[in-house]
This record gives sequence, structure tokens and C-alpha cells, in this order.
Amino acid sequence: MTGAASSCGTGIRNTTGQKPSKRAFRGAVTRVAVALGVGVALVLRAVAAEDRLSSWNDGPAKRAIEDFVARVSDASSAEFVAPRDRIAVFDDNGTLWAEQPVYFQAQFAIDRVRELGPSHPQWRFEHPFQELLAADTASALGNRENDIATLVMATHAGLTTGEFRDIVNRWISMARHPRFQRPYTDLTYEPMLELLQLLRGHGFKTYIVAGGGVDFLRPWVEHTLGIPPEQALGSTIRLRYEMRRGTPVLVRLAQIDEIEDGPGKPAAIQKHIGHAPLIAFGNSDGDREMLEWTKAQPGPHLVALIHHTDAVREWAYDRRSRVGRLDAALDEAIADGWLVIDMKADWGQVFPFERATELNR
Amino acid sequence: MTGAASSCGTGIRNTTGQKPSKRAFRGAVTRVAVALGVGVALVLRAVAAEDRLSSWNDGPAKRAIEDFVARVSDASSAEFVAPRDRIAVFDDNGTLWAEQPVYFQAQFAIDRVRELGPSHPQWRFEHPFQELLAADTASALGNRENDIATLVMATHAGLTTGEFRDIVNRWISMARHPRFQRPYTDLTYEPMLELLQLLRGHGFKTYIVAGGGVDFLRPWVEHTLGIPPEQALGSTIRLRYEMRRGTPVLVRLAQIDEIEDGPGKPAAIQKHIGHAPLIAFGNSDGDREMLEWTKAQPGPHLVALIHHTDAVREWAYDRRSRVGRLDAALDEAIADGWLVIDMKADWGQVFPFERATELNR
Repeated sequence: MTGAASSCGTGIRNTTGQKPSKRAFRGAVTRVAVALGVGVALVLRAVAAEDRLSSWNDGPAKRAIEDFVARVSDASSAEFVAPRDRIAVFDDNGTLWAEQPVYFQAQFAIDRVRELGPSHPQWRFEHPFQELLAADTASALGNRENDIATLVMATHAGLTTGEFRDIVNRWISMARHPRFQRPYTDLTYEPMLELLQLLRGHGFKTYIVAGGGVDFLRPWVEHTLGIPPEQALGSTIRLRYEMRRGTPVLVRLAQIDEIEDGPGKPAAIQKHIGHAPLIAFGNSDGDREMLEWTKAQPGPHLVALIHHTDAVREWAYDRRSRVGRLDAALDEAIADGWLVIDMKADWGQVFPFERATELNR
Repeated sequence: MTGAASSCGTGIRNTTGQKPSKRAFRGAVTRVAVALGVGVALVLRAVAAEDRLSSWNDGPAKRAIEDFVARVSDASSAEFVAPRDRIAVFDDNGTLWAEQPVYFQAQFAIDRVRELGPSHPQWRFEHPFQELLAADTASALGNRENDIATLVMATHAGLTTGEFRDIVNRWISMARHPRFQRPYTDLTYEPMLELLQLLRGHGFKTYIVAGGGVDFLRPWVEHTLGIPPEQALGSTIRLRYEMRRGTPVLVRLAQIDEIEDGPGKPAAIQKHIGHAPLIAFGNSDGDREMLEWTKAQPGPHLVALIHHTDAVREWAYDRRSRVGRLDAALDEAIADGWLVIDMKADWGQVFPFERATELNR
């Protein structure tokens, strides 16, 4: 609208100070009308762009998604689905944002260990803290599940829910991704942001069903992805209600509550949402049951795997990766006809900052 | 609109078959216009009525609610709250619907025991099944928590989520409340239905945070109270993902997962919704922590207890009741200035069917 408003201004401003003739006035009016027309067109284009998968390359993946969304949201379609049932669920790491070289949350836990190290002298003799405090890089840890669980318990518990949220917010604003030297929130996938927007524009409720901890995600996914806290599901640790100086608080305990991975994902969706979704996206074996269960429901459904195939713009990995392993789920996707999205071929742009970087060259 | 449409029809129908004069035509037009005006007025009144607490008596409780809702939803108010944070939570039994002589879900479990009795011969020798199978009425059981837990496990587990939903739906359509001889869904409180409607009309998301089992509620609260499954929280039992004849299902296990009562309620709200609500309603000691926690948040909030004081239209009970005991929470409400709603004084109508019954006399 800024562009349209300034054209509009140029059209009617009289810089010479002379009284404009009737004809000039008519010309000005015409120019105003044209400018307004352009303005309206720009607005319409902006609205349309919001609903378009513009960073997806034309091809079968983009077509399959657009066709499905049109079919279930068009009231005259045989496959129309009431808005109440238009639920779309998305895995977190590797589906909505990058997960290499380690999950964001693992890096958060590592940074927390280093920050808390001085007040935990015993950590210098305990695995995995010892290695982390000594090593220069996150790769010292890898992604061994047990180590991550130990770290999460040591760094995510003992605080109130409000204290933990503040710590996550501070980290997310300060930390930089080692490869891109940008905030971690910049590593969301532009095509997935567009897809979320497209779905909301067609009456879908969009959910994250994360393997990761939901309290690590909620502070930033609302701002970054437009997903409000009540539409973010994920793994949890137990909370205890207690009074601190006369004020009730919820304290995070070092006890696992829900683990939303593998068969835990459909169970969590049933528990939190109450029924199966219409659309499910994932990228690893931990998403297999969620996609399988979604596909088994009667009526239309769309299940898709993001396949990390782009070593240049992102990372290429699948069957042998320590992070986000995609093996059995890829076999099932091929055998059962799930949509497999080839990041290299299907995405014209991966991260939101790519276009800006190109333009600045 | 039916009334308006038929007035409209009367105005223009020419029953004599004669060609109407110009004057008669003008008269007809006038009548059409009047009828349309009446129609519009009726529609406007219907819209306004939806947003009004018409079965609440004028008094401090009604005023406190209306004032609060106006203050937080008016953009020019100093206490304006963004729509994202307009979350209202409601306890289930005794807050949104009646809970006497036993919780609906306890009666459902009792009826299930009687239905399943023939295929469980050992129940004839086991407490509490033995007493239930022998006794004529539900009062043989009472509401002893252990007995209810035993019953729930025996009758709510072992089925898939879909099978259980179908059984609940069948019960809710067949069962009749012993005092009113009406479906249990008729025993929702008219003033609370109006309040839910008022809140939604002001941009609130309305949630149930039930002590009872969420899978017993979800099949009917959407239709009866307009609360979709993802906005119903409650106690849960664990689910196991498994394949049955090649189809993935979720099977209900005889293991408690979450118990949403007392301090479990604020913990569940934090876990499922991600932050404290703006409004919380309850009626028993099991709601105390939920209300206390809501009230402790910074900014505006409204916390209220429904006090069962009407032995004629409903039931009168509080500190010594086996069902829905209200004792410590009532003390705290009085000491801390929570809104206490006196059902007898504050509600002009309790159940939706009362008005229809009066009109039929």
C-alpha cells in the first residue's frame, strides 16, 4: 500500500502553485483512479500471495497439496470436509525447521550446561556434562537419546514455568546457528510457512505435534509460525503446583510425563485434539505412526514426508542419520503411496532469508 | 424468522383472484415493509438474546460477569485483553451440569457393569460389582473414589477409542436421569449455556477442564454445549497404538494417565493450553487450585464458584456432600473475594426444560 499511496500523492500534488485547469484536474482524478486501482490490485496480489505456495516449484508435490486443500474446503466438492474437522498436524524438527547439526533444543540444553557449569562443580566428573564443558563444539555430544534426556532433566527442571519460559526467550534471542550465523528462528522453512498460511486461509487449524519439549517451543512458535500455545503439543515433564511466598506457581519436576514420539504421537493427538487429523506432515521414523494412523482414517487425508535431499542449501540425510533418521517410514511411504517431498527438487527456496540474501548480492 | 415470513406471505397473497388496485398494492407493499421490519427486529432481538444472561436474575453476580466481559473485550478499556488471551475454563460436574445423585459418568459405569455382568461371572463375588449387580439403585455405591476408579477401569478400558465413543453415544441417547426422567444432557444449566454463548460472542475460547474422563465427555459436549473435542480437557487413561487386522487403532488401557482434580487442574491447563485462563468457574474443592492460580495471575481475571443452594429446582449441598463437596474452597472464596454464585438467588431458571414445562402448564 505504501507504493500506491505515494503514486496517489504524486498524481494530485500541484508543485507549481498555479490553479489547475479543469482538464488538468480531470487528469489528476484519472491518475488518482489509476493509482487507487493499482493499490487495490497490489492488495489483492498480496492477499493471493499469502495463499500461494510461491516458493514451491511446480510439480507433483505442489499440485497434490493444492488439489487436496481445494477439494476438502470447497463446499460443492464430493470430498468437502466441515471446518471443525480441518485439522493439520506437523512434526517439529526437520519438518518445520532445520534439525542439523543437532536439534535446537539439544543446543539449548548444551548452552545451559555451560552457563550453569560454575555452580555445579560435580559436573566436571560426570558424563555427559564433563565432555560438554571441555569440548568446543556441540558435536562432542552427538544426539544419543540417553544423554539428551539427562541433559534435559538437568537443565529444564527445578524452575517454575514462568522462569523456564524467560530462559528460553533469552536463549532464542541470543543464540546463533553455527552454520548460518543467524537466530535459530530464521531456520524455519519458507515453503512450510507458506503451507501453514495456505491451510489457515482454507479454514484449517494448524498444530505442531513435536517430539521435542513443548515448553521449549511455545515461547517462540507463536511469533515465528503463527501457532498459538494451545495448538502446540509436545513432550512434557511433570509439573507440581506449589505456593512460593504466598503465590501459586507450577514447578517443573525432573520426571518425564509424555514422550511424543513414534506411537506416542497418535496417542497424543487423540488425547489433546480428540480425533485424527486430515493432514499430517513429518520427516523421520518418529512420525511413522502419526502418518500411518492419519492415512488409515475413512475419508480424504493427506500424509507427507519431507525428504532432506539438498546438501547445498540445507543438508542431505535419511537412512543413516543420527538426527532425524528416515528409514522405515520412507519404505512405508513408498509402499503405501504417501507424498514424499524432495526438498531439492520441490522447493525453490528453503529458508526465508535466502531471497533477501540474493537480492542483496 | 418463521413468524416474519408468514406475516409477509399474508401481506401479499391475493386470495380473491381479483387484480389488486394500485392503492391495495401500495397497502400490500407497506405491509411487506412492516413485516420485513418486524422480521429484522426479531432477528436483532434473537442476536441480542444470545448475548444476554436472560435466565440470570438481576443482581451482583450477573453484573460482575457482564462488567468483566465488557471491560476485557472493549478495545478502549484500560483492562482490554487481546483475543488470544481470552480463555475461559469451566469445571464439568456441578458447574456446567448437575452431579446428583451421582456423577453421570459413575451412572454410566454402573449401567455398564450391569450390561457386562453376565459375561463376568466372577463379579458376583467381588466388591463393588457384587453390590451393584444386586442393588436396585445407584445409591448402593455412593461416590467412594476407590470404587469409582475400580469401576471405570473395569468398564472404560480394553476397547478402542472408536468403540468406547460409540458406547458412550448409545448410553447418552438411552439413559434417563432418575429424578427428572430426561436424558442426562438435558441437565445442563441454562444460565451456564448463556454464559458460554456470551463469552464466545466476546471472542473467548471456552474450555471444559473436567475432573471426569475426557473421553466420556467429548462425544456429547460438542452438541450440548458447543465445546469442540480439542477444548475439552479431563482425566485420561493410557492409550496403546496397535494394528488390528492391518488397521492402526488406539486401545484404552486399564492404567491411569492424568487425573485432573485439585492441583492437577492448573497443571493440566498449563500443559494443554500453555498459560493461565482469564476466567475460571468451579463448584467444589476439586476446583480450588484452578481458581486460586487463575486469580494469582497479573492483570484482570474472574473466578467464580457455583454454590448449590436450591433444594427445590436442583439440590442444596456443600460442606458435607459426598458428591461435589465444597468446603475449603468456599472458605477461600469468602476470604479472598471470589465471586460466589447462589443458584437459588442468582438463577431465574436452572435447566433449559423448566421454561417449556411452565409454558405447558
